[in-house]
Order: sequence, then structure tokens, then C-alpha cells
Amino acid sequence: MSSTNPIVGVFDSGFGGLTVLRALLPRISAAHYIYLGDTARLPYGAKSQQTIARYAVESARFLEARGCDYLVIACNTATALALDDIRASVNIPVLGVIEPGAQSAAEATGLNSEVLVLATTATVQSHAYDTACAARGLRVTEAACPLLVPLVEEGWIDHPVTREVLRIYLSEALQNCSPEAVLLGCTHYPLIAKAIAQTLEDLGSEATVIDSAEATAAAASFALTSPRHPSEAFIPATFECFATDSVEKFQRLGSLFLQQPISQVQLLDLGG
Amino acid sequence: MSSTNPIVGVFDSGFGGLTVLRALLPRISAAHYIYLGDTARLPYGAKSQQTIARYAVESARFLEARGCDYLVIACNTATALALDDIRASVNIPVLGVIEPGAQSAAEATGLNSEVLVLATTATVQSHAYDTACAARGLRVTEAACPLLVPLVEEGWIDHPVTREVLRIYLSEALQNCSPEAVLLGCTHYPLIAKAIAQTLEDLGSEATVIDSAEATAAAASFALTSPRHPSEAFIPATFECFATDSVEKFQRLGSLFLQQPISQVQLLDLGG
Repeated sequence: MSSTNPIVGVFDSGFGGLTVLRALLPRISAAHYIYLGDTARLPYGAKSQQTIARYAVESARFLEARGCDYLVIACNTATALALDDIRASVNIPVLGVIEPGAQSAAEATGLNSEVLVLATTATVQSHAYDTACAARGLRVTEAACPLLVPLVEEGWIDHPVTREVLRIYLSEALQNCSPEAVLLGCTHYPLIAKAIAQTLEDLGSEATVIDSAEATAAAASFALTSPRHPSEAFIPATFECFATDSVEKFQRLGSLFLQQPISQVQLLDLGG
Repeated sequence: MSSTNPIVGVFDSGFGGLTVLRALLPRISAAHYIYLGDTARLPYGAKSQQTIARYAVESARFLEARGCDYLVIACNTATALALDDIRASVNIPVLGVIEPGAQSAAEATGLNSEVLVLATTATVQSHAYDTACAARGLRVTEAACPLLVPLVEEGWIDHPVTREVLRIYLSEALQNCSPEAVLLGCTHYPLIAKAIAQTLEDLGSEATVIDSAEATAAAASFALTSPRHPSEAFIPATFECFATDSVEKFQRLGSLFLQQPISQVQLLDLGG
């Protein structure tokens, strides 16, 4: 790994991982980022472990072959179901989103605190957050929220239907727990973090909302600016994007997640 | 093609095409059906033409290789974007859902009638229904309804959120047209046909709801029981199912669409 200008690969099934890239850009500026969205095969959230692992490994190998020194799996589902497979298939360090998210929840609460994790069906079924949080002495309730990704992708960010769906999901979850923190276990959810916080308040919960995208960027920053890779004088970060499906859609929808324009996206055929 | 016991391939990106299989089973009983759901790569509705065509052609070739005499593309998106590619890649007759749906709309209304087509984003962007309906002298408005598939897959069939989403989509669409028929241009939508009809009534529309799954089954029945393939004495239809992702999920969710238990699903790797 170059100590001066690392190349950081950021992988997600689609656009959501751009919320992690957005958090990374200002934190590790002296870096070049290569973002890959496997948009031809999204969403991963409802697929099986075998299928998700196969897809994620193909993408990780592509990013390593493009010269990445460090890999961020900016996809909760791929982290939950395929992190070991990805680590076994490449020769660079790999960071997932779940350990940083769980660590952030532990720091924000305390031993034996209750945490509610909101995620896709596949992430919940893996119980990866449960394992990572339990290892930090937290008690966890996991709630699958399959409609939130389509609602965000419809652009219904501040919308009565989204608030009503959140009210249904959260009121059901709060029947089973009284969390001190709510962990956003899907990279789409930061876009509706305000609505989630408001709904929790409306339902009488005082839980803190924790964004695993921010937590992951902090963990990557720590790894990449350690003594082995001292931070340099400010050099603006650069990034390039690859997608396995429509580059026009990636530019349009991706800009919403990254909160800045995406000038160019390269189409990639992973043969799937 | 055997005249006595045709093998009919039915293809969809996921489970929705089972509404077409459900309509086929009683119509062409002396047949064996092979259903393939490309569940590892669903949904097709938001993907590009090139990607959809590549996926659909792989599935069509698989079904031909399994011995199918006749192929039904029970997927609106694949029909809209890949029917010509599929027909060019196999040597058996191929029926899509769009021409039968448009024909059914024409028969239910009359020349120069207005028809509203509800479909996925990709189907709407293809304007395949517009072309097929215009060729029959109908005037068409197409409305993309991207949240309806996730709502059906969440099982929110008779649910206030689904009714509210329908109210939003349909009231917006009815600002631009006064249709005599509403064509369900997605194989998931028959499951919420009642809610669609009720919402139309609530909004003051007298439009007839037309199900392209039923229309397609009728067209296939006509082709397969023509003089060349006379109908036989009643023999119960048999079927088998293949899926490219989790067979458990296919059995569980698929039974909802087929409205009968699915005892066995075979996992298929299309290499994607």
C-alpha cells in the first residue's frame, strides 16, 4: 500500500454505499476512491448467502485488480453474508460496515444497553449485527424494513407514506424493546435519518440514531492514517465510479446519495 | 412440438409470472409446465435493456434446452425490452404478455378509447404498451408504479399503506387521462387488483381493470389448442419450478402468487 496516496475501493450492490463514500471523502482526502455499484444484480437484500457471496467476491476481485490498497464493503447485506468470503478471496485489507456500526453503538450507549437494528431482510436473517453487538455487551433487537429501500429509491424522502411505513415498522419493533440507540443497518437509511429520528420521538422513544456509514468512514480513516500511513498535507480526494447497469441511472440516483454531482460512470460487465 | 402433451416454458424474473402459470394451468391442462424464476437477478423493472435482454435470453435458452415446445415470457419488463432478442435466440414459438394485454384492452373498450397502463419503470420507459395499444386504435397513458412490487412482496395486499400509495399513483395518473380500461402491466399487480379497482372507484373512475396474465393465458391456450394441437381428453397439468436464488423463499412467496402449494423448487445456476 502506498503511504502517500492510497487507492480505496468502495463496494455496494447499488447506490447506498455512496453514503459511505460521502463520509470517506472529507476524512481521507489524500486518497483516490474507486466505487463499484453492482447495479445489474441489485438489490442483494432479499437474496441467499451463496448468491450474495458469489456476486460480492467478483466485485472485490475487480477492485483489487484495479489497484486498490484497501477495500470498504459499503453494503450491510454483503458484509453480513459475505465478509469472510471476500477476505479469503483478495490480498488487501477489507473493512465491512457492521463491526464499525456495532462499535459506534457501544460507544454511544453502555454495557448491557438495548440497541435496535433496522436492516434488510437478509441482514436481519444473518444476525450479523446481533453477533457484533453482543460481543460488545449490548442487547439487540433486529427489525427487517424491506420497504425503506424502495421508498428511498422512489425519492419519497420527506413523504407521508414513508413516515407511515416508519411508524408501522418502528411501533412494532418498540413493542419488543426500549432501545437507547437505533442503528441504521442499511446504507440507504441515512437519507431518511431525520424521519426515523422524528418517528422515534413521536412514539415516545429517546433512542439516539446511529449511522453505520459515518462509523465505517471513521474506522477506515483510523486504519489508513495510522503511523504506517501518516496523513499528508491536504490533497483533495478523487473518485471514479463503475456500475454494472445503466450509467445514466447511476449518475442521477447516485448524486442523491453522494450529495454531489457524479460526472462520469463507467459501465462494467461482470458477466452475470 | 408434440400434439398431445406440450411442454410449456414460463419465464419471469421472479414470482409474478406465477400469476400467468396460475391462469394457464386450468386452460391448457394436457401440458407439462416448466417455470423459471430468475430470482438471483430480480427485479428486472429498474434495469437497462442490455442487461434485461442478456438475462432473459439465458433463461429462454435454458427452457428450450429442457425440451420446451412453447415459451411464455410471463414478465412484462422482459417482454417489453427483450422479446425480439428472445425470439432470435430460440427455435420455438415465444409469446409475451404485452400483445395479449393490449388485445384484451381493445376488446374490452373500443376504437379510440383511453387506456391507462400501470407498470414498472422499465416497462413504461420502453413504451411497449403504448405501441401495442396504439396499433389497435387505443389512446394510452402509462404510469410507472415502482412501489407496488415491494408492497406485494411485503405481503401488504389489503393494507392501508398500499391503498394510500395506489391513491397517490392513480390520482396523479387520472389528472392526465379518463381511461375506460386500466391495464395491469406487471404480473405482481393481479394480487392487488381488488384494491386497484376500489381506488379507481373512490377516485370517481369507472374504468375496467384488465389483467394481462389472464389475457396471456387465453392467447397461449388459443395457440396450443389450435387445429395443429387439438385439445385432448382432460389430463391434469403438471409443473416443475426452477429458481436462480433461494428455493425456500420461492416456495414460500411463490405459493402466494400461484395460490397453491409449490412442493419442490430446483436451484439453477445461470452463471450470473
